Amino acid sequence: MKLASDARGVYVIAPTPFHADGRIDESSIDRMTDFFLEAGVTGMTVLGQLGEAPKMEHGESVSIVKRVVGRSNVPVVVGVSAPGFAAMRALTQDVMALGAAGVMIAPPNTLRTDEAIVQYYRQASEAIGGDVPFVIQDYPLTFSVQMAPGVIRRIVMDNASCVMLKHEDWPGLEKISALRGYERDGSMRHISILTGNNALFLDFEMERGADGANTGYCFPDMLVDVVRLSAQGRRDEAHDLFDAHLPLIRYEQQPGPGLAVRKYVLMRRGVIASDALRKPGAALSPAARSEVDYLLARLARRDARARV
Amino acid sequence: MKLASDARGVYVIAPTPFHADGRIDESSIDRMTDFFLEAGVTGMTVLGQLGEAPKMEHGESVSIVKRVVGRSNVPVVVGVSAPGFAAMRALTQDVMALGAAGVMIAPPNTLRTDEAIVQYYRQASEAIGGDVPFVIQDYPLTFSVQMAPGVIRRIVMDNASCVMLKHEDWPGLEKISALRGYERDGSMRHISILTGNNALFLDFEMERGADGANTGYCFPDMLVDVVRLSAQGRRDEAHDLFDAHLPLIRYEQQPGPGLAVRKYVLMRRGVIASDALRKPGAALSPAARSEVDYLLARLARRDARARV
Amino acid sequence: MKLASDARGVYVIAPTPFHADGRIDESSIDRMTDFFLEAGVTGMTVLGQLGEAPKMEHGESVSIVKRVVGRSNVPVVVGVSAPGFAAMRALTQDVMALGAAGVMIAPPNTLRTDEAIVQYYRQASEAIGGDVPFVIQDYPLTFSVQMAPGVIRRIVMDNASCVMLKHEDWPGLEKISALRGYERDGSMRHISILTGNNALFLDFEMERGADGANTGYCFPDMLVDVVRLSAQGRRDEAHDLFDAHLPLIRYEQQPGPGLAVRKYVLMRRGVIASDALRKPGAALSPAARSEVDYLLARLARRDARARV
Amino acid sequence: MKLASDARGVYVIAPTPFHADGRIDESSIDRMTDFFLEAGVTGMTVLGQLGEAPKMEHGESVSIVKRVVGRSNVPVVVGVSAPGFAAMRALTQDVMALGAAGVMIAPPNTLRTDEAIVQYYRQASEAIGGDVPFVIQDYPLTFSVQMAPGVIRRIVMDNASCVMLKHEDWPGLEKISALRGYERDGSMRHISILTGNNALFLDFEMERGADGANTGYCFPDMLVDVVRLSAQGRRDEAHDLFDAHLPLIRYEQQPGPGLAVRKYVLMRRGVIASDALRKPGAALSPAARSEVDYLLARLARRDARARV
Repeated sequence: MKLASDARGVYVIAPTPFHADGRIDESSIDRMTDFFLEAGVTGMTVLGQLGEAPKMEHGESVSIVKRVVGRSNVPVVVGVSAPGFAAMRALTQDVMALGAAGVMIAPPNTLRTDEAIVQYYRQASEAIGGDVPFVIQDYPLTFSVQMAPGVIRRIVMDNASCVMLKHEDWPGLEKISALRGYERDGSMRHISILTGNNALFLDFEMERGADGANTGYCFPDMLVDVVRLSAQGRRDEAHDLFDAHLPLIRYEQQPGPGLAVRKYVLMRRGVIASDALRKPGAALSPAARSEVDYLLARLARRDARARV
Repeated sequence: MKLASDARGVYVIAPTPFHADGRIDESSIDRMTDFFLEAGVTGMTVLGQLGEAPKMEHGESVSIVKRVVGRSNVPVVVGVSAPGFAAMRALTQDVMALGAAGVMIAPPNTLRTDEAIVQYYRQASEAIGGDVPFVIQDYPLTFSVQMAPGVIRRIVMDNASCVMLKHEDWPGLEKISALRGYERDGSMRHISILTGNNALFLDFEMERGADGANTGYCFPDMLVDVVRLSAQGRRDEAHDLFDAHLPLIRYEQQPGPGLAVRKYVLMRRGVIASDALRKPGAALSPAARSEVDYLLARLARRDARARV
Repeated sequence: MKLASDARGVYVIAPTPFHADGRIDESSIDRMTDFFLEAGVTGMTVLGQLGEAPKMEHGESVSIVKRVVGRSNVPVVVGVSAPGFAAMRALTQDVMALGAAGVMIAPPNTLRTDEAIVQYYRQASEAIGGDVPFVIQDYPLTFSVQMAPGVIRRIVMDNASCVMLKHEDWPGLEKISALRGYERDGSMRHISILTGNNALFLDFEMERGADGANTGYCFPDMLVDVVRLSAQGRRDEAHDLFDAHLPLIRYEQQPGPGLAVRKYVLMRRGVIASDALRKPGAALSPAARSEVDYLLARLARRDARARV
Repeated sequence: MKLASDARGVYVIAPTPFHADGRIDESSIDRMTDFFLEAGVTGMTVLGQLGEAPKMEHGESVSIVKRVVGRSNVPVVVGVSAPGFAAMRALTQDVMALGAAGVMIAPPNTLRTDEAIVQYYRQASEAIGGDVPFVIQDYPLTFSVQMAPGVIRRIVMDNASCVMLKHEDWPGLEKISALRGYERDGSMRHISILTGNNALFLDFEMERGADGANTGYCFPDMLVDVVRLSAQGRRDEAHDLFDAHLPLIRYEQQPGPGLAVRKYVLMRRGVIASDALRKPGAALSPAARSEVDYLLARLARRDARARV
């Protein structure tokens, strides 16, 4: 089951559940995996930035992938971004052998010119092997690398194994329109575009041509609904549901505390046992927790899933 | 009427209205000034980043301040950030002579260490004169300068003329709590904290101790209401109104197209005659305009002011 | 006398001499202008980054240009970089009317993609007028903007009035070779390439195809000699002279204190009356001064001009 | 043999020798280790930035350390910088068990405020264990993190196991003076300061109070001589030797091609078998090679070691 360019729906970004002391919590991984499948996701991405990937040792990373792949019946994509190609290749080989569907690669934050970005992905693809499907992660806010639409087109056309864009540029709506325009004018083959950035613009991204979401908002079940409603053309219903969640989406999208918010809500929803982050990574303040509780209580008036 | 540290309410950030050909539109300035006053703002800030200040010649800047000050009965703050102190001092002297209440200063994006930031504000205050009240603009997303709470405290304690913080760090809630904590423990005198970043977190910022808003969202009348409701402890009502606007707030908060959105809505509300930006600055795409129209139509169901 | 693409030799970057209290020192400007002409420069650039341009008011900038142009018989280029096009156009019009030969434009440090850089120069040229010759300043270390050789080619081919590159990328030797390669393969018309970065690589830059230097090292007379020797193919002599100066070149090339070093040596050489910088800008420490004195004493054993 | 705060002399930064196909070249490692010892180094640092550490897999890193430690009779420091503490701790434990003398830690390039930097080193030290001596790598040009002298003092005073500063800030002379001033005024305990940045300012750094060099310039034997001469107060001789090498030092100090220059010269000196870099990493152009050859030929007139 390899990742392909016709992927759609919700590829949820999975956090990594830890015990309070920082050890990986395997039974929470299992419960979380089941929860995602019941929520209707069409894929999962593990070991992304918000999966705390850089805090994991190689062996731990492999064991997480093994556990999730073994329990899922949907494609599992693995984040393999690394400062060097040796570690990237090593992790890719191990996880593809375990049944991963493909890998996700973010650019190192030192890249500046268009040519440097294009060349990086060419070398990365060569390093992991041209048969391994890969996802471009386009997240300038975190990685400081700006990819113009024409650069993404060059990467797509250079590398047959590039099948998906994790789109989280901000602002980003015109970028989706530009890329779909390239497909229409025949200058770029079709790729799957799934959007991230905690779904802050998912409502309009779907209307601009996205195929779904690739993010980890604490209500992936809502993401599944919005993507479905939007794909069915039920615009107002999609926005109504989305807007009800927007106050919490916005709160969780904050860089820094966002992941702690996500884990806290997943804990309150009974999905994971603890909201602990590995160091370095701060816990929510009591004030922040009570703000999240308030947002959940308000949301519960419009979406019963928020009654926790 | 000089700006003081007990300022509260809404200091609206005023855009600069242009004719389609880029000339300053003076009658729109007048209409906009009146509109702000009717909306209940307690102050105005002109020539900020979103007032397109860097695109103005010195003489133009002065004429705008003269016009707004002459028509207002509330304090007018003027953005005077500049690459060098000579231009900053020149503009400050001219606008204070015209009756401005104070000035706003953003840090140059080359500053890195705590000490360098503190020293910059000391030199800036010396350059403009210790009798001119000033506002710190703390907006790392745009200026790439991170000011820890302790750095803001040092600036406040170093400079008696520092009376306000335009708080738009992101995430920023804990920063407000930290600064108010300094006031409580006696290590920092009181300053006014008004929040920006297009009000994306105004609901909770008020609850953390902010004195109001200092931003230019296209419904300043809503900002006035939320600040009032929150100050009165009518929490749910404040959130209800805020949440109704959040889909549009989020859309307008996008760096880049955000100002075009703001001007487009103000034009549709009849406040300014044209939504033109000076170059460099792109117009909204047709797709973006229709998205804003859709957001306004949805908002109108819950706030009659959006019926445009 | 307009700047043209066949410019060669040394366009010295002129500092702005101040009195100790920060006022412009006009008689030092005159003496410095004469000194440059006697040193054999073929042009001068005023109001660059190291001319402390951002610390000047508009009127001051104009008066400096007037003074230098009035006293010189070589082309005078003026730095007009500004955060917005209004100020850039205003200064350009004023200085061209006074007889400047052209202007120099650095990119704002927010530009990221190739397309954004190309577009910026197109808009800038439109703003100042297509009849005004301009110089691209390519200095990533200071401006954080990386221009690939292909981007420079696009700017040159887009804008007939682009006649010169102030090359100070680092590393930069391969960039000169690439640009001259474009000229040879017919994909780019010829432009003048003068190199900056305090001449740290002038020896090899000349051999790679540069037309000369465009920098402000405190011995412009040495730059003139090295450019001449290199153009005459007297390679070893060029390197011998260059190497004798390299310890001081390196010391002066430091970002931050570099300008203070330059002014200190020019003062010791009797060219300007004071080594004062405008604020913000620190003086040399006593330790640094004595290090410069030591370097001068060592240099004097091999170049009599260093006997000060 | 643990690293201590009285370390002095030259801790050479070792490159990692590869075969042309990218495999580690073990016999070159041995030859290089012997060469360094014969050159008179007092320590070695492996797996630094210019040891291509991020391109290595964990197992490879460990094997390199094992080989070098097993062959040396001087302290071996290991670069363990990593995006997360898990990998940092894992590598530290493995190499300390093999007999490494300490580790070197560079800050992640996302750190901004003073407090964030101080906290990072506190957490890093806790992660690797308070009994492991560590070196602060202060290299803003590469890591984008600015550490004020006061921040280094805080790290030193917070962590008893912090014993050395690899000083490569630029400009950096005043920083050495400031730190030694802290020691004199009793506000900071003594640490070893060894300087990097390819020795571009080694001549004056020694005079400001550095204890030696910690860099990988292709003539470590020259570094040993300059450090010795300077420590003996033979100022002119130290500068004479240093100046003879400066044209090549400057050429090798270029970010990007610098490492290829270093490996090329070490290959020409017979120390390593190939100048290959692992991908991503470009080879020298023919023009660059001939420039280095020319610099070596010129140097050979003054230092016989350059006759290769």
